[in-house]
Amino acid sequence: MSIGILTSGGDCPGLNAVIRGAVIKGDRIHQVEFLGIRDGWRGLIEDDIVPLPRRDVRGISRAGGTILGTSRTNPFENGGAQRIREVMEARGMTGLIAIGGEGTLTAARRLADEGIPVVGVPKTIDNDLSATDYTFGFDTAVSVATESIDRLRTTAESHHRCMVVEVMGRHVGWIALHAGIAAGAHAILIPEVEVSIEQICGWAEDARDRGRAPVVVVAEGFVPSGEEQLHAPRGLDAFGRPRLGGIGERLAPQIEQATGIETRSATLGHLQRGGVPSAYDRVLATRFGTAAVDAVIEKRWGTMVSLIGTDIELVDLHSATTVLKTVPQERWDEAAILFG
Amino acid sequence: MSIGILTSGGDCPGLNAVIRGAVIKGDRIHQVEFLGIRDGWRGLIEDDIVPLPRRDVRGISRAGGTILGTSRTNPFENGGAQRIREVMEARGMTGLIAIGGEGTLTAARRLADEGIPVVGVPKTIDNDLSATDYTFGFDTAVSVATESIDRLRTTAESHHRCMVVEVMGRHVGWIALHAGIAAGAHAILIPEVEVSIEQICGWAEDARDRGRAPVVVVAEGFVPSGEEQLHAPRGLDAFGRPRLGGIGERLAPQIEQATGIETRSATLGHLQRGGVPSAYDRVLATRFGTAAVDAVIEKRWGTMVSLIGTDIELVDLHSATTVLKTVPQERWDEAAILFG
Amino acid sequence: MSIGILTSGGDCPGLNAVIRGAVIKGDRIHQVEFLGIRDGWRGLIEDDIVPLPRRDVRGISRAGGTILGTSRTNPFENGGAQRIREVMEARGMTGLIAIGGEGTLTAARRLADEGIPVVGVPKTIDNDLSATDYTFGFDTAVSVATESIDRLRTTAESHHRCMVVEVMGRHVGWIALHAGIAAGAHAILIPEVEVSIEQICGWAEDARDRGRAPVVVVAEGFVPSGEEQLHAPRGLDAFGRPRLGGIGERLAPQIEQATGIETRSATLGHLQRGGVPSAYDRVLATRFGTAAVDAVIEKRWGTMVSLIGTDIELVDLHSATTVLKTVPQERWDEAAILFG
Amino acid sequence: MSIGILTSGGDCPGLNAVIRGAVIKGDRIHQVEFLGIRDGWRGLIEDDIVPLPRRDVRGISRAGGTILGTSRTNPFENGGAQRIREVMEARGMTGLIAIGGEGTLTAARRLADEGIPVVGVPKTIDNDLSATDYTFGFDTAVSVATESIDRLRTTAESHHRCMVVEVMGRHVGWIALHAGIAAGAHAILIPEVEVSIEQICGWAEDARDRGRAPVVVVAEGFVPSGEEQLHAPRGLDAFGRPRLGGIGERLAPQIEQATGIETRSATLGHLQRGGVPSAYDRVLATRFGTAAVDAVIEKRWGTMVSLIGTDIELVDLHSATTVLKTVPQERWDEAAILFG
Repeated sequence: MSIGILTSGGDCPGLNAVIRGAVIKGDRIHQVEFLGIRDGWRGLIEDDIVPLPRRDVRGISRAGGTILGTSRTNPFENGGAQRIREVMEARGMTGLIAIGGEGTLTAARRLADEGIPVVGVPKTIDNDLSATDYTFGFDTAVSVATESIDRLRTTAESHHRCMVVEVMGRHVGWIALHAGIAAGAHAILIPEVEVSIEQICGWAEDARDRGRAPVVVVAEGFVPSGEEQLHAPRGLDAFGRPRLGGIGERLAPQIEQATGIETRSATLGHLQRGGVPSAYDRVLATRFGTAAVDAVIEKRWGTMVSLIGTDIELVDLHSATTVLKTVPQERWDEAAILFG
Repeated sequence: MSIGILTSGGDCPGLNAVIRGAVIKGDRIHQVEFLGIRDGWRGLIEDDIVPLPRRDVRGISRAGGTILGTSRTNPFENGGAQRIREVMEARGMTGLIAIGGEGTLTAARRLADEGIPVVGVPKTIDNDLSATDYTFGFDTAVSVATESIDRLRTTAESHHRCMVVEVMGRHVGWIALHAGIAAGAHAILIPEVEVSIEQICGWAEDARDRGRAPVVVVAEGFVPSGEEQLHAPRGLDAFGRPRLGGIGERLAPQIEQATGIETRSATLGHLQRGGVPSAYDRVLATRFGTAAVDAVIEKRWGTMVSLIGTDIELVDLHSATTVLKTVPQERWDEAAILFG
Repeated sequence: MSIGILTSGGDCPGLNAVIRGAVIKGDRIHQVEFLGIRDGWRGLIEDDIVPLPRRDVRGISRAGGTILGTSRTNPFENGGAQRIREVMEARGMTGLIAIGGEGTLTAARRLADEGIPVVGVPKTIDNDLSATDYTFGFDTAVSVATESIDRLRTTAESHHRCMVVEVMGRHVGWIALHAGIAAGAHAILIPEVEVSIEQICGWAEDARDRGRAPVVVVAEGFVPSGEEQLHAPRGLDAFGRPRLGGIGERLAPQIEQATGIETRSATLGHLQRGGVPSAYDRVLATRFGTAAVDAVIEKRWGTMVSLIGTDIELVDLHSATTVLKTVPQERWDEAAILFG
Repeated sequence: MSIGILTSGGDCPGLNAVIRGAVIKGDRIHQVEFLGIRDGWRGLIEDDIVPLPRRDVRGISRAGGTILGTSRTNPFENGGAQRIREVMEARGMTGLIAIGGEGTLTAARRLADEGIPVVGVPKTIDNDLSATDYTFGFDTAVSVATESIDRLRTTAESHHRCMVVEVMGRHVGWIALHAGIAAGAHAILIPEVEVSIEQICGWAEDARDRGRAPVVVVAEGFVPSGEEQLHAPRGLDAFGRPRLGGIGERLAPQIEQATGIETRSATLGHLQRGGVPSAYDRVLATRFGTAAVDAVIEKRWGTMVSLIGTDIELVDLHSATTVLKTVPQERWDEAAILFG
């Protein structure tokens, strides 16, 4: 009996700890072998699969990224359940652990519906999956963003500037909310809450008037209320293609023009998703990995491991992938007390 | 109207973020003034109290320790509720926020029973308080311990040694459990679970036989099953007083003697409780601080703020202080799969 | 007798340690008082000056930025030596310590030529000052850049991408050279050395062929040999002004197009100049500060403190400000062995 | 033609970067193969040697410790030059790179005198080697010590305690000096400088009187002037052997008793020598590695690579190993201005 394991979608600190947890528990408790599927669904479709013995997962929980590689290949555009069933049977693979975000888990759910024996492990930097309190990767991303804002703030204060820091979060503002609270931001801007340029400038001016260098944390998916032509190109890139500046880059000159405060922007980008995982993420990911192999052994196909309070539970992939977990208004209001 | 605030017991990363959150929310939403009580209950008994305006909490959430100072003074040995009532009345203090661990919260509960208008904020590095999923300080302690073990491991591997790392946890093993999982320890020893020297040596030998340098993480309160004369002095200190070596220091030579593996120990000690709080702890502490001032405004005397899942709730101090939150056997079992 | 002290130009980790070192040594050894000049030359010209007693420098060596503030005001456009002499006399300021980079030190030299009693302290993130082996700030910048590249690399490897990381260095490539060596880059591109797009792509392909995710570190001032229209605008910014993309942003699509390797870029920007200074920078800055106050006491006007080997020496500001310290070809060749 | 490489003595951050630098330069420039000798001189004497191709050094410069392993085996007690010559000839090893501290380099010198073709690379956490300005490992040790003191200080301040921090340095005080300056210690105690308990207590009281929590940094080899019975046992260890407490542990109660300030001690121990090397150490170690292989190719037997200012040079092993580099009195005096 052997179990396949794959990581799919954007990489995330903690993926390796999931893999290690699953492989060691499989080896020691259930006497099952693991097969490592390379680059997500691509490796499964193309039968790019290698044995994954225990010695190959030695020490990897401290490493960022994924030793299996990842890709954004969609299995349903490349043979779907039928092709996957063929490869799994040819390999003697009696179960599959798919680690990924909303897209990956939706694919896993659909494959489970079509009879593929699959269990999901949720992965998202953005913390946007409902049905789990948190996922690994989010804590590391918040930590990196917070440390970066701590650094950027000292320059802003020395030069009496306003600093706009753009963090990840295309659809939800969890990283901005947590990093903004942790770093003591004077404004936190997230896709879920309408805020106008005038309000942002008001907070910046209040902070300035109290002698502070205003720090504005903005999620990449935020749009100022009333902003027109959001998606209009901001110029051309090196190949003459329309280029869309990030929201941080667009906000900074508007704040400077309206308030007279010299304003700079910084975009943290991929820094938030790479590198050594935080202790929190390593623990959660290890627990997810060991729970996932148990779910496979118990043939709980179509479920996903999940953190509820301090417990690891199994939830149905259907319920887990239908609702985006956005920041509730009251969580933002709670933080907004500290703005300005 | 003014609110007093104090920090009591051992210091903890995040105390300043609680203070800042409470003061800013009090200032901006409730228009109340804060009085800073110096060094825990001592300052309240001795009327060592200073105004705490908003500008004094500027930027402090990034700083470890407590700007108010702390002590282990027991209010009931120094005048009790009557003296506290006198000082509070003289100062016009209509409510009190007491931030502390099990001892502090038990005193707060007893004072509330005697009519003192007090609200608690739980603080424990050790994560040993029931009625809250986590408290601030724990995440920072686990992070520091994990980073330290990561460092110590490289030396152990280069020299083919076993490394015993003693972390905090006199009565409960949460720090050892989490840091041990995060750092990939080959054995985790906690006060809650009986383990013999033979088992420990077995795990060390298994790790060695797989080519690893065994890493043993031990909570300071762990006692090997069957160990005699635990509390027997191990020599005399500089003043000729009996000196009790730590458990890490005592285990190392026993492992070396039994297994033949050269073994060293390291005791992390106060490193785990000082310094810049993690982003996780800053967020939780800020939320606790703003929720505590709300509780005071609503006169929810005798309650404590608490984290349940992802929500901040108020719980009764009676229920919060009667049960020590120990590591359940199943959580240790879950980790023990990875040992050896 | 009192000494004025100012920080001018871009901020830099270690400025506060210089200030603290100078003030404490002045207080304890020479019994002189310090005056803090706000925002560089601006504060001196405008007489924006405050007493700087020892208690105000308590604990600041661990903080990034500068407690005095900084600006890019040019003293010669605002009254020059005459105005400065007036303010210094009115304040009873018998000596001046000017901490800054090439521009500040050139101004200080010219002021010294005109009779102003001034001593310089070199400050540059970029390490571009001749007459000193290193200055504070550079080590922190290299450390931050190295940690960032370590993080970015894991994502590149998981996705089999090439990552182009743009670091500071408009005229010299020291940060790129050191961070690139430390992080194991597959190419290091600096303003001092001609490299063509073809060579860069060759290194990326070599790395890819060995199974690596190519990492290219580029100083912001690098120009590929033969690149035309370097300064041509790459589009319009939020206000319709021509927008010049950074070199990292411009290189990435060229590498992707030529090699077929998916390529992303990251620009570290201000992250490199803020935050807690490294231990190395705190030591060097403290030594510079204490040496600078000695130079003032000895009336060594027109000199600058400098690190030669492991010693602090005084050098003439004339010799210190005339030659830009570029990366010698042999230092780049030494590193280039590791490329590809 | 092949070159052997070994690491000997205590491990040190940067060893792997030396190995990687040497192997890659050997592979790409000189077309020589490397043989990895396991556990220092032991592996050479016992012929425990493996091929070390380029792919085996991939990415290792970021890892602490040494992939080759290390030991404290003395070659002259195990066959000496004759045995080494036999093994080298049998393996076709035409040159040897020995990376180690004073003991290793002295052995290398003696072997070179007896005709063994060996080049040395200096390695010392303690910075105690003359003939080189710095070696790799020292910067990482100072960084870790400084961060640790920063952490410990917050607890000391919250509790109004004195904190004694013991750092490495049995014979020289470089780590204590640099970490003490960087962390703003109120006293720095090193083996090279006589200081009495009375002076130490005086500094602690001065700091306390200014409202600070006194921080005392002490090198493990420091002895208070006039202390009697330094080497007297302080009790018995777990096996009934005499136990010698560290200097930090011995100083703390003496300071507490004499000053009345509650005092704690912390011993950083192995934390200072493990883990991810600093960027500074990675650069220096890489440069040492590439220079060492050049020295082998040029048959510069009996020399050692060395940092002089910013240059890498070759020095004679005789001159390099005869003088211990101690902290000069003037460097300590320079720092002592900041005490108290």
